Amino acid sequence: MTITDQLISFAAKPVPPEASAMMSLSLYDWAVCGIAGAREADFHEFVAMQTGVGTGSCAVFGGGFVPAATAALINGTLSHALDYDDTHFAHIGHPSVAVLPAVIALAQEVHADLDAVIDAATIGVEASILTGLWLGRAHYQVGYHQTATAGAFGATLAACRLLGLDKAEVRTALGLCASMASGLKAQFGTMAKPLNAGLAARTGVEAALWAQAGMTAAEDGLAGPLGFGATHHGEGAEINLPKKTWHINSISHKFHACCHGLHATLEALREADVDPEMIQNLSIRTHPRWMSVCNIQTPKTGLEAKFSYRQTAAMMILGYDTAGIESFSEAVLQDVDVVALRDRIVVKEDDRLSETQSEITVQLANGGLRRLKHDLMTPMSLETRAAKLQAKACALIGETQAEALWQAAQGESLRALTDQLVMS
Amino acid sequence: MTITDQLISFAAKPVPPEASAMMSLSLYDWAVCGIAGAREADFHEFVAMQTGVGTGSCAVFGGGFVPAATAALINGTLSHALDYDDTHFAHIGHPSVAVLPAVIALAQEVHADLDAVIDAATIGVEASILTGLWLGRAHYQVGYHQTATAGAFGATLAACRLLGLDKAEVRTALGLCASMASGLKAQFGTMAKPLNAGLAARTGVEAALWAQAGMTAAEDGLAGPLGFGATHHGEGAEINLPKKTWHINSISHKFHACCHGLHATLEALREADVDPEMIQNLSIRTHPRWMSVCNIQTPKTGLEAKFSYRQTAAMMILGYDTAGIESFSEAVLQDVDVVALRDRIVVKEDDRLSETQSEITVQLANGGLRRLKHDLMTPMSLETRAAKLQAKACALIGETQAEALWQAAQGESLRALTDQLVMS
Repeated sequence: MTITDQLISFAAKPVPPEASAMMSLSLYDWAVCGIAGAREADFHEFVAMQTGVGTGSCAVFGGGFVPAATAALINGTLSHALDYDDTHFAHIGHPSVAVLPAVIALAQEVHADLDAVIDAATIGVEASILTGLWLGRAHYQVGYHQTATAGAFGATLAACRLLGLDKAEVRTALGLCASMASGLKAQFGTMAKPLNAGLAARTGVEAALWAQAGMTAAEDGLAGPLGFGATHHGEGAEINLPKKTWHINSISHKFHACCHGLHATLEALREADVDPEMIQNLSIRTHPRWMSVCNIQTPKTGLEAKFSYRQTAAMMILGYDTAGIESFSEAVLQDVDVVALRDRIVVKEDDRLSETQSEITVQLANGGLRRLKHDLMTPMSLETRAAKLQAKACALIGETQAEALWQAAQGESLRALTDQLVMS
Repeated sequence: MTITDQLISFAAKPVPPEASAMMSLSLYDWAVCGIAGAREADFHEFVAMQTGVGTGSCAVFGGGFVPAATAALINGTLSHALDYDDTHFAHIGHPSVAVLPAVIALAQEVHADLDAVIDAATIGVEASILTGLWLGRAHYQVGYHQTATAGAFGATLAACRLLGLDKAEVRTALGLCASMASGLKAQFGTMAKPLNAGLAARTGVEAALWAQAGMTAAEDGLAGPLGFGATHHGEGAEINLPKKTWHINSISHKFHACCHGLHATLEALREADVDPEMIQNLSIRTHPRWMSVCNIQTPKTGLEAKFSYRQTAAMMILGYDTAGIESFSEAVLQDVDVVALRDRIVVKEDDRLSETQSEITVQLANGGLRRLKHDLMTPMSLETRAAKLQAKACALIGETQAEALWQAAQGESLRALTDQLVMS
């Protein structure tokens, strides 16, 4: 039994309530990211080019209706444009941006309700993570963007679930996906990074629709001879299908508009209550992997500020809302209080910590010592998570739309949701 | 200077007349294959699904007008559906099916003439071969379908040439292509093999248009760190840009409706005059590379028959017309004479042979021995090639359309050509 057989069987599994509750929150967060992402002017010409070539029944962030594959491409790209969407650390991927655009687009074509969307998306996100674990770190390290590669297989399985394809069709769809799944980490820092997510979403739509239309493909394009795993440096790790506890339950959401490597530190500081003036020096310890990712000592642009422990820690202590995109402006780099505090912060690597942990020591002017720590893996109740996501939504798209979107995402009507997505 | 820098410079080169003369013949042969391919019922639902989602100005084989990217996808797929199009053995790829659909689709949008199509396509086909040589045999052997991978880069460069993009835009287009180029050999024997060609053609159109629309991408997505070569088992062979003699001059055209790896064997057998009943056993020696490509021992479908030395050799000896598509039917698999003769044929790899050579030993019942051989690289004049291609066209689409298409392909009007493509 290969991962392909496992995924085909998984596509017919019932979804446990905890998993779909998490997916529902991710749907809300994804929609917030997409609505905000659609405001990024850089992407407007690309989007206009796609919406200009064909109309359909599938809503596009910021307005417009196009065929399903095109909607998946655009919405996948726009929802990852801010890099503010959910993450799963097991395989380092952003699952929702590949899966949800595919499912929601097809759902509009087949008139499915929101429950069916959540159901199919949960299968798809879990399948992305399983495929990512099967491909393993070797696949990621050599240069593949798991969000796009594993994500395409997740999007495909989600699309198959929504369309109700039979086992043979699901097998074909996965086989077709094996010839289309792609996306490189070399694109990080360019507009092609979010594009990778959009392409994965489109692949999911097309693989499922084309399998339905009678196309044929390799019997096991993912795990078979000369298959995707063999060609794409996959480790072929042994995978167990989830029973009660699904991987999606440990998905991470971003509550700060900056690199995910900074978030444990910011969460640790959020809980502290330290008078900035009292801080003599502050020492952050983090996993060694992050040192080359987000430890810019003296950021010179707003973008660089999003990859700086010292900068973001100083901002958090001084009361900046690190959830807001506009907080990472050129102005904050000139704030003399931030600069002064930043210069009293040091960052050290500590290989006893995991990638989701941070530990902080604060030396106070009065000789006192404060120790803070946080682990992003610390369980969080769904209620707490929902509240934090709503606060993030308010920061990104304003209170009115955040609330209207929340109501829509809690309901059963897909139309009520897509009515929110098309608002600009 | 990487292959990327070389391709960017190559995109601005003048095309020598011998190269464009060969491209013109390939254009004709490609159109014949596409017109015949559009009659394959298996693909009708797939095509209808694409033509149904948006209209545009770009002709589709068999009828219909769609946006450029969709036309490239459909026409690339249909023109490779019969696996009867041209091949370049330097990298083992089918260059025209990825490049021409991209160029012709965009040419209709920008109202270019047929000379501009030939010019851009020649650059693109040559670029496919150069990229394929740079990726090398390691890339092909591990499981990538060069037609699709190298083909996508060729299609991209051709599209850039046609649209007149500047150097920075060409660089971005190649960077975008690096995240999209894909396609596995695992699909051989399924409808996803021609689909790979269609996807490569679409990638060329999209990469060029998206670069024009201001998308950004990795600085050197093909040859840079974590780039396409590094991730996709590329050898990174040293490449020289062609001067007087271009690789396209040594392109091969198919005169049998089956895998090109079989053609040297079939040409050798064509010249033989052996009574099937007299054959005790027959031994085919071929280059080792073909053993995993077209050595299906006991084909179960007409499609599999096209990838079988034993099957096609038996057919040729028994007088089947291997140039005719209808020869590869389910019926031929049931022909007891074919099956009986097939069982007396063995296939052996021989690394002293090149990939275009075949040697055959026939052991006769009377104790006699016949030795046959052929090399596809035996030079052929343009006139001989044109005559053979016209004869093939007559067999595939009938004399009237073959002649009308020939006239159109020799002219300057793109419209005259596309008027032929849409005929069903």
